Amino acid sequence: MTPPVYEILPIGYVRSPLTDRDSAPKQGFEGAPDAWLVFNADVVDGMRDLAAGADIFVLTWLHRTRRDVLAVHPRDDPRNPETGVFSTRSQDRPNPIGLHRVRIAAIDGSRVLVQDLEAFDGTPIVDVKPVLTGGR
Amino acid sequence: MTPPVYEILPIGYVRSPLTDRDSAPKQGFEGAPDAWLVFNADVVDGMRDLAAGADIFVLTWLHRTRRDVLAVHPRDDPRNPETGVFSTRSQDRPNPIGLHRVRIAAIDGSRVLVQDLEAFDGTPIVDVKPVLTGGR
Repeated sequence: MTPPVYEILPIGYVRSPLTDRDSAPKQGFEGAPDAWLVFNADVVDGMRDLAAGADIFVLTWLHRTRRDVLAVHPRDDPRNPETGVFSTRSQDRPNPIGLHRVRIAAIDGSRVLVQDLEAFDGTPIVDVKPVLTGGR
Repeated sequence: MTPPVYEILPIGYVRSPLTDRDSAPKQGFEGAPDAWLVFNADVVDGMRDLAAGADIFVLTWLHRTRRDVLAVHPRDDPRNPETGVFSTRSQDRPNPIGLHRVRIAAIDGSRVLVQDLEAFDGTPIVDVKPVLTGGR
């Protein structure tokens, strides 16, 4: 039986000064720069209630990664013991979806400025969700 | 230009007593039952470091939803004003990825028992990530 395959269509992309994996922080709170979320015209109605100050989860597609990796040395440091990818935030994983919790700094039309996003320039955005009570 | 499409391959599925959208709670912390995450054999090596007591994010594919909806009445309640989907946790959204923060109750081989998961029986799982400091 062929397994099902689901299709992701990007809803926008990231504009960031980060362009290189080696120079990027491992997590946004470790000092990533501000970045713009640029939404595609056909989904702009879905972002109409986003507002500065709100905390959101941004889901991205980590398009430069390996999908056949199931264990990694966390933080790309060989001194860390090899760990199953589902216990890490490694970009290399079967479905390379990035999960980023960020705060909205400003809205400008179809663009949203967010703080501390550890995603490369050009990264496709696949979803945005509000952070609920208790960080859920 | 044709937009890029990315393919999700499920890594497993949910086994839950929840079988019906109307009876399901809107969020897990509102009283969803415990559920099993059943991992596919080909990704089991990626879950080898999951352990009881850990908080994880489970990403699912909400396969019974509408992808052409950009605004909804939150919680399916018409008294709530219509809101852009990226400010809600609506299952109807362009890329129907569910984000669930849950705690691991037990591990049994390739199955993981989690508490308070608001996902239907049979829901495909697309990723599992650790919750980091500060709920990120």
